[in-house]
Amino acid sequence: MTDTNPPSPGITLEQFRQISDERLPFATSMGIVAECIAAEQVLMRAVYDSSFLRPGGTIAGPIMMGLADAALYALVLSRVGPVELAVTTQLSINFLRKPAPGDMLAEARALKVGRRLVVGEVALWSASGHREELVAHATGTYSIPP
Amino acid sequence: MTDTNPPSPGITLEQFRQISDERLPFATSMGIVAECIAAEQVLMRAVYDSSFLRPGGTIAGPIMMGLADAALYALVLSRVGPVELAVTTQLSINFLRKPAPGDMLAEARALKVGRRLVVGEVALWSASGHREELVAHATGTYSIPP
Amino acid sequence: MTDTNPPSPGITLEQFRQISDERLPFATSMGIVAECIAAEQVLMRAVYDSSFLRPGGTIAGPIMMGLADAALYALVLSRVGPVELAVTTQLSINFLRKPAPGDMLAEARALKVGRRLVVGEVALWSASGHREELVAHATGTYSIPP
Amino acid sequence: MTDTNPPSPGITLEQFRQISDERLPFATSMGIVAECIAAEQVLMRAVYDSSFLRPGGTIAGPIMMGLADAALYALVLSRVGPVELAVTTQLSINFLRKPAPGDMLAEARALKVGRRLVVGEVALWSASGHREELVAHATGTYSIPP
Repeated sequence: MTDTNPPSPGITLEQFRQISDERLPFATSMGIVAECIAAEQVLMRAVYDSSFLRPGGTIAGPIMMGLADAALYALVLSRVGPVELAVTTQLSINFLRKPAPGDMLAEARALKVGRRLVVGEVALWSASGHREELVAHATGTYSIPP
Repeated sequence: MTDTNPPSPGITLEQFRQISDERLPFATSMGIVAECIAAEQVLMRAVYDSSFLRPGGTIAGPIMMGLADAALYALVLSRVGPVELAVTTQLSINFLRKPAPGDMLAEARALKVGRRLVVGEVALWSASGHREELVAHATGTYSIPP
Repeated sequence: MTDTNPPSPGITLEQFRQISDERLPFATSMGIVAECIAAEQVLMRAVYDSSFLRPGGTIAGPIMMGLADAALYALVLSRVGPVELAVTTQLSINFLRKPAPGDMLAEARALKVGRRLVVGEVALWSASGHREELVAHATGTYSIPP
Repeated sequence: MTDTNPPSPGITLEQFRQISDERLPFATSMGIVAECIAAEQVLMRAVYDSSFLRPGGTIAGPIMMGLADAALYALVLSRVGPVELAVTTQLSINFLRKPAPGDMLAEARALKVGRRLVVGEVALWSASGHREELVAHATGTYSIPP
């Protein structure tokens, strides 16, 4: 099984932002914006809002899960083109450190791009922190409709 | 390793709703409400809003992840008492069927209640559908602060 | 998406044992034997051997992972027939209690039987212990070749 | 939460091999040998045996899971010292490509080294293939006894 999809972006940043604005209202409500869609990776940001907080003064897990899932979705579209109906089949996330209030960043990259399934991993960190000090790490699978 | 925590609810439905209202604004914005907190399980609902939709006319994954995580949080508090600082360390979710627009239900039950870690599983289904036809299934771990 | 596969066993216990004996040598070396293949579930056993032990005098995780994966494989074949080329795409396992030396049992049941993917969950416990006191819990996905 | 453990190896390659030889018989039976234990990563090999094969002529999932778990165990000991009683609490693995018969390699690195939990990720590939063409990717958590 080899990667048959070219590494060139199947979707531009502008195209993804339009899909996100029009078709992913929950992402908008989570302050999620695409920062970069390149051949090999995707960078997404969750713009901080005080509604992200949970007891302990840290950012709630569901915000991180939403950000990770959105980054994987953009990654899939960047690799296979604008197949909006691609859906997550599985997502696994480890929460590593408690993120301080503030923007969060997520970088997704592909582990495998198959015809039916795309598997990727996502690193999440605080925009005010260090890239190496991950606050969460996720892996996820998207199913590509025939 | 045995379950040392009693199965009696460590928190009432009213207490959890108050914590949720005051301390989990993202849950409120996702329409998440606790329906039942009992000795052995927790039932949560996500009240439908059109902002839940994603391409394909189904409910977005992050709504389901948020609902699953909130159900696990309530489960933890029901077993170990109101330790608000309990945090998710890991969550794994399988998306099984595309949920039609409408309320979603989630039932959480404990797989293990330890002193440091609580592990639970969550079944999610459409309120308009059948309990056996799960739309998603999650397992997650919460860490209990010392 | 509905389950189009009949719940009747697509493979008999004898057929599975033959496949296991001839085609799954690692399972044989782990002492894994199918005990029951029924319409809705599969029961597998790992017959204890002292080579299963790890520091602490408990059974090593890889034995439990092998048992869970074998139980899912039998489940898949019981639902879709003898498609030996079905392969695991993802497996997630929580280790809940340290199993004492002795046989282990695993019960697998389907969460979803689709045309391309089968998702199941597996409960593992000690044959000398209680069914409710799980030592591990796994979920996994098998991909069905076209 | 910061990493308080120094990145210097808490255990040498020779020490780990001795533990593995004496205390991890299942690893030995899977042909698992540590190749390198360094400050930041661990490299393990599973020496091929025809008993690894499953239908389709590829290496069975449980061999990869055993290799991933052993690599994480060595990683934990390399970061926190020879705490043999450290145990896996959770492991999640994605199978990405079907590995051809032959040795397999696994490289583990830490995502977080806490006092109670160590989280790591493992990349697996065929020794005869390319490092970038992963055959599997795992994340796992070890619990450190008090």
